[in-house]
Amino acid sequence: MIIIMRPNATAKEIAAVEQQLIDYGFKTHPIYGETRTIIGAIGDKRLLSMNQMLMMDGVENVVPIMRPYKLAGKELKKDPTVINVKGVSIGANALAVFAGPCAIESQEQFSGIAAQVKKSGANILRGGAFKPRSSPYSFAGLEDEGLKIMANAGKEFDMPICTEVLDTRDVELVAKYADILQIGARNMQNFKLLREVGKCSKPVLLKRGLASTIEEWLMAAEYIMSEGNENVILCERGIRTFETSTRNTFDLSAIPVCKELSHLPIIADPSHAAGKSKYVCALAKGAIAGGADGLMIEVHNCPEKAMSDGEQSLTPAMFSQLMTELSPIAAAVGRTL
Amino acid sequence: MIIIMRPNATAKEIAAVEQQLIDYGFKTHPIYGETRTIIGAIGDKRLLSMNQMLMMDGVENVVPIMRPYKLAGKELKKDPTVINVKGVSIGANALAVFAGPCAIESQEQFSGIAAQVKKSGANILRGGAFKPRSSPYSFAGLEDEGLKIMANAGKEFDMPICTEVLDTRDVELVAKYADILQIGARNMQNFKLLREVGKCSKPVLLKRGLASTIEEWLMAAEYIMSEGNENVILCERGIRTFETSTRNTFDLSAIPVCKELSHLPIIADPSHAAGKSKYVCALAKGAIAGGADGLMIEVHNCPEKAMSDGEQSLTPAMFSQLMTELSPIAAAVGRTL
Amino acid sequence: MIIIMRPNATAKEIAAVEQQLIDYGFKTHPIYGETRTIIGAIGDKRLLSMNQMLMMDGVENVVPIMRPYKLAGKELKKDPTVINVKGVSIGANALAVFAGPCAIESQEQFSGIAAQVKKSGANILRGGAFKPRSSPYSFAGLEDEGLKIMANAGKEFDMPICTEVLDTRDVELVAKYADILQIGARNMQNFKLLREVGKCSKPVLLKRGLASTIEEWLMAAEYIMSEGNENVILCERGIRTFETSTRNTFDLSAIPVCKELSHLPIIADPSHAAGKSKYVCALAKGAIAGGADGLMIEVHNCPEKAMSDGEQSLTPAMFSQLMTELSPIAAAVGRTL
Amino acid sequence: MIIIMRPNATAKEIAAVEQQLIDYGFKTHPIYGETRTIIGAIGDKRLLSMNQMLMMDGVENVVPIMRPYKLAGKELKKDPTVINVKGVSIGANALAVFAGPCAIESQEQFSGIAAQVKKSGANILRGGAFKPRSSPYSFAGLEDEGLKIMANAGKEFDMPICTEVLDTRDVELVAKYADILQIGARNMQNFKLLREVGKCSKPVLLKRGLASTIEEWLMAAEYIMSEGNENVILCERGIRTFETSTRNTFDLSAIPVCKELSHLPIIADPSHAAGKSKYVCALAKGAIAGGADGLMIEVHNCPEKAMSDGEQSLTPAMFSQLMTELSPIAAAVGRTL
Repeated sequence: MIIIMRPNATAKEIAAVEQQLIDYGFKTHPIYGETRTIIGAIGDKRLLSMNQMLMMDGVENVVPIMRPYKLAGKELKKDPTVINVKGVSIGANALAVFAGPCAIESQEQFSGIAAQVKKSGANILRGGAFKPRSSPYSFAGLEDEGLKIMANAGKEFDMPICTEVLDTRDVELVAKYADILQIGARNMQNFKLLREVGKCSKPVLLKRGLASTIEEWLMAAEYIMSEGNENVILCERGIRTFETSTRNTFDLSAIPVCKELSHLPIIADPSHAAGKSKYVCALAKGAIAGGADGLMIEVHNCPEKAMSDGEQSLTPAMFSQLMTELSPIAAAVGRTL
Repeated sequence: MIIIMRPNATAKEIAAVEQQLIDYGFKTHPIYGETRTIIGAIGDKRLLSMNQMLMMDGVENVVPIMRPYKLAGKELKKDPTVINVKGVSIGANALAVFAGPCAIESQEQFSGIAAQVKKSGANILRGGAFKPRSSPYSFAGLEDEGLKIMANAGKEFDMPICTEVLDTRDVELVAKYADILQIGARNMQNFKLLREVGKCSKPVLLKRGLASTIEEWLMAAEYIMSEGNENVILCERGIRTFETSTRNTFDLSAIPVCKELSHLPIIADPSHAAGKSKYVCALAKGAIAGGADGLMIEVHNCPEKAMSDGEQSLTPAMFSQLMTELSPIAAAVGRTL
Repeated sequence: MIIIMRPNATAKEIAAVEQQLIDYGFKTHPIYGETRTIIGAIGDKRLLSMNQMLMMDGVENVVPIMRPYKLAGKELKKDPTVINVKGVSIGANALAVFAGPCAIESQEQFSGIAAQVKKSGANILRGGAFKPRSSPYSFAGLEDEGLKIMANAGKEFDMPICTEVLDTRDVELVAKYADILQIGARNMQNFKLLREVGKCSKPVLLKRGLASTIEEWLMAAEYIMSEGNENVILCERGIRTFETSTRNTFDLSAIPVCKELSHLPIIADPSHAAGKSKYVCALAKGAIAGGADGLMIEVHNCPEKAMSDGEQSLTPAMFSQLMTELSPIAAAVGRTL
Repeated sequence: MIIIMRPNATAKEIAAVEQQLIDYGFKTHPIYGETRTIIGAIGDKRLLSMNQMLMMDGVENVVPIMRPYKLAGKELKKDPTVINVKGVSIGANALAVFAGPCAIESQEQFSGIAAQVKKSGANILRGGAFKPRSSPYSFAGLEDEGLKIMANAGKEFDMPICTEVLDTRDVELVAKYADILQIGARNMQNFKLLREVGKCSKPVLLKRGLASTIEEWLMAAEYIMSEGNENVILCERGIRTFETSTRNTFDLSAIPVCKELSHLPIIADPSHAAGKSKYVCALAKGAIAGGADGLMIEVHNCPEKAMSDGEQSLTPAMFSQLMTELSPIAAAVGRTL
């Protein structure tokens, strides 16, 4: 880290800062300028927080040199991570397309949608058994029964299934049925849950928090990976801004930024970003052209009767049309669909 | 709710919307304007989501009439809620002042700070036993041992204690020691945790999420209250914005807005909002003048050695000075300190 | 507009609101529900502001029915606007590509870049003669001389030129040389300047403000159009959010939203959105796949010596590569490049 | 500035960076760490932009050491600036209270309000003659006539007057009548206008932009000051965030931050921040307790008939009540009202 002293820092203050750094095992490299002193410090910053240095008398600012994540970053692993789930690769040349309804409502509903999205080219089923709802009075999912419905459909259509887990107490149960565990945007910094899915052997789809920076997101991935689970899939789903014409603002640039900083695969969820089905296709196309490794799309056979998020769901026919239109875009960026 | 039809909506579309409303038990009141039709619908909106209506052909917009929370709002309860914890009132004329270190480091540290903040006028002890940290490699609290240290200090100084709970699995344990359970900003929409503390008999301090609207915050309070626990204390702790000179942007207006919309008490946490100790006092004074029912302040005997958040902690001497300066401001708004 | 009365509004208050609406020429349609009254009001809302109604006793909320822009919206004009500038169409099937340096530094520099971008397929030259700079000590452009340099290059390479105007006093001068006048993000709500370019016969490229909603942006277009200049080109260039890994957050969804709400053409400026050249290509591709009518790209022959914004400029070689890669994406969405 | 090289930067890249710094007159101080090299550079950063360095091969990051403003900061002037306008001091112990209607509607209206706010203790009159309106169809002010009305009232009540200037072409005219020129939030980065009021002899009230960082705001002040006008008054008026229950989010922390970074006086505008009159008093009290040097409050004799912003205006009676309540708060922070 680099410690920038105030212009009027005294020699005593400067000496105290140097001593503190040395005490924590850092090598110091002071630069005594005309107006102020700057101290470069080389060492393991985990032993000494930037905040501790900032608190010392005479210190104006402290600048980190290294990024705070190791396993999620590229310093230790340069090659892109490819995750294989029951024969489907995520992060490979072929795009991963997760599709399905927001909430699982019945076996008939779910299997019906599964049949249609599979036909259109989706390769992973998604659906909610445990639903985070902003109102305690809203439908919160079929829970255990929903998991079984999903698993049945997964077997019937030979597709891996992905569903959200909300509670540390449910990780074991959800992992029993699901092939990919989803951590939702609201739980991106539920650190206990991150550690728990990190102890699990199933890949984790990690959605970006509503107001999380990319660095915080990669730190959340680091939590999971630090417990031994290296199969993390990032999912950009829009961030909260002042704009109200969409539910969230889809941050397209998160795709190239994550590709630069991390080896993990990244997919896009245009459904939650837009919040309105009429904008989903434009975002999906933009995400693939911008380099995403796949998509997560909400599809419902009867959106106006959906028990959750119908507003943003495509019908199977709209989804089929989208897949047709995506194909040449995928080809244009060297990917297959 | 009010359904605004598109200018070119057909008679058939309008009829279908009316029928759907009637099917769900609403009374409809259509207004046939020259350019478009508007349909007022009176009924229980929990049975029919706005999104379902929005999905129907010919519908341009749906406007809610009623607020989505009932228990947290003022429709059913107009008088301000006053919460009594071991002789300390929160929401009453006298201000509640929560003080203590971010993380509990040892009995000696915690009791030492407790003695000093009590002397300066704090009436509730706060401290972290379970710490949410953005890095998996940071100190995450003393956990069980921290709870015991807190409880000891609570008895020694005859003060109620408040500490954060992070995991549904820990609610019972934390509730055994703590007098007030804190739900942190990152868990404001951890709905399973909200339900779990809602089943508990201890009051809950509910911090506002980093990017949560006031409506979402009151809905989180509704979650807790809907499980039977009506003792919820709101805590404004700054929201995430583009400004970087403070860690978060303290939203002073949240105080009068919550006072208008809810009967629940609201306190301010200037320490987490500012992120820098030098700005804490100005925010604390502003919050009290603006109508807050109390404060939560981080105090550490040696901030530059703190294991967490030292940067924003006041020293006991600074805290004592702040309490002295707050006293006439409290008096100016008719409160006592 | 729709006036929602409070649950406890008195009959007198309701009558007063109805009378006020009638006084302003509205037809009223009250709905007397069990818990509250709602009044639908049909008429010209320009005569009566929503705020005036909100101020009345007993009123809880006022909801607009109509969008506040007329000329920029689709009610009066459904067909997409195509703007022709010296043989180049903007908003047509062929994409418009504006390219050039942030600041014009010399005839040699500008003509050199112009030659290269034309060769790669750009069809409009862009460059800054008057530069808005956040520091008063930074290079603010060559001003008049810059305009002449641009005009020379425009003639030499037979390309229309686009440049920013910052001051009402300069509109006439800039319009003398430029084929398209640019209103920058910081001036999107400089209403006097909007009116002034609205009186001008040259098309206007209107960048979205850093923190402007799409509605405010369309209202800014309305300002220009209300003065008689209907040739407005919208340009999405990123909005300000909490994320710091890019200069701004490119709002991809603004493209389908504007396409839905307005007939005006919309292009994307990935250079200012990203703020870093390494992310420009991903955003450019995503924008075209998402439906943009064109791009504005900063190109500099020697970015590390650029007098402004070098960090985000592509070299001519990078630009040429981008154009090659964009070609199949354009084809995939039915456009030509 | 400090240049942080990438871990894999070559010796050649490092040498090139050092040479570039030396070429621009900097003294370099390299630190060769085990994993990477850091180069401290002491010199005048105006000659070399950070961006130029960032573009060089092998450079990962560039960190500024000095703040970009000089005249607005405290390095050259430590004492707080006190501005005297016709006997009223701004930035002194006594608080400055600007009051008046959003828009000037007639001599009778304005003088009536002036008489009342003076009686309640306001010491500066504010009112809009040129109004920035988001719709081209809204009332834009009485313009010249409004200026004359204001000047008449200023003389009659012996109070300085403050009004907004929107256009470089109007600066001379407005300065002829007004005692303080206001730059509105939407023009905070209208650099031509900043330069023009900088050439003027009247003090300037500079509102913070809707999405402007404090650093950008102080740079806007620097623009004005760099032209010779050192009498700049900062005015915090709320920033744009995701929260919609208030028009903007009042950033209370901007007050202590500006007090730390700058010698300029800072006042608060709770009316525009809240956007609703019912929240104005809480914000006004909080701002004074938090250290503001004064307030700007909208007062209208008949808010529900106001031609602009009635929703957020206090009545004269509410304003009088606020002044009474503010008095002990001012005393509590050692100020007089």
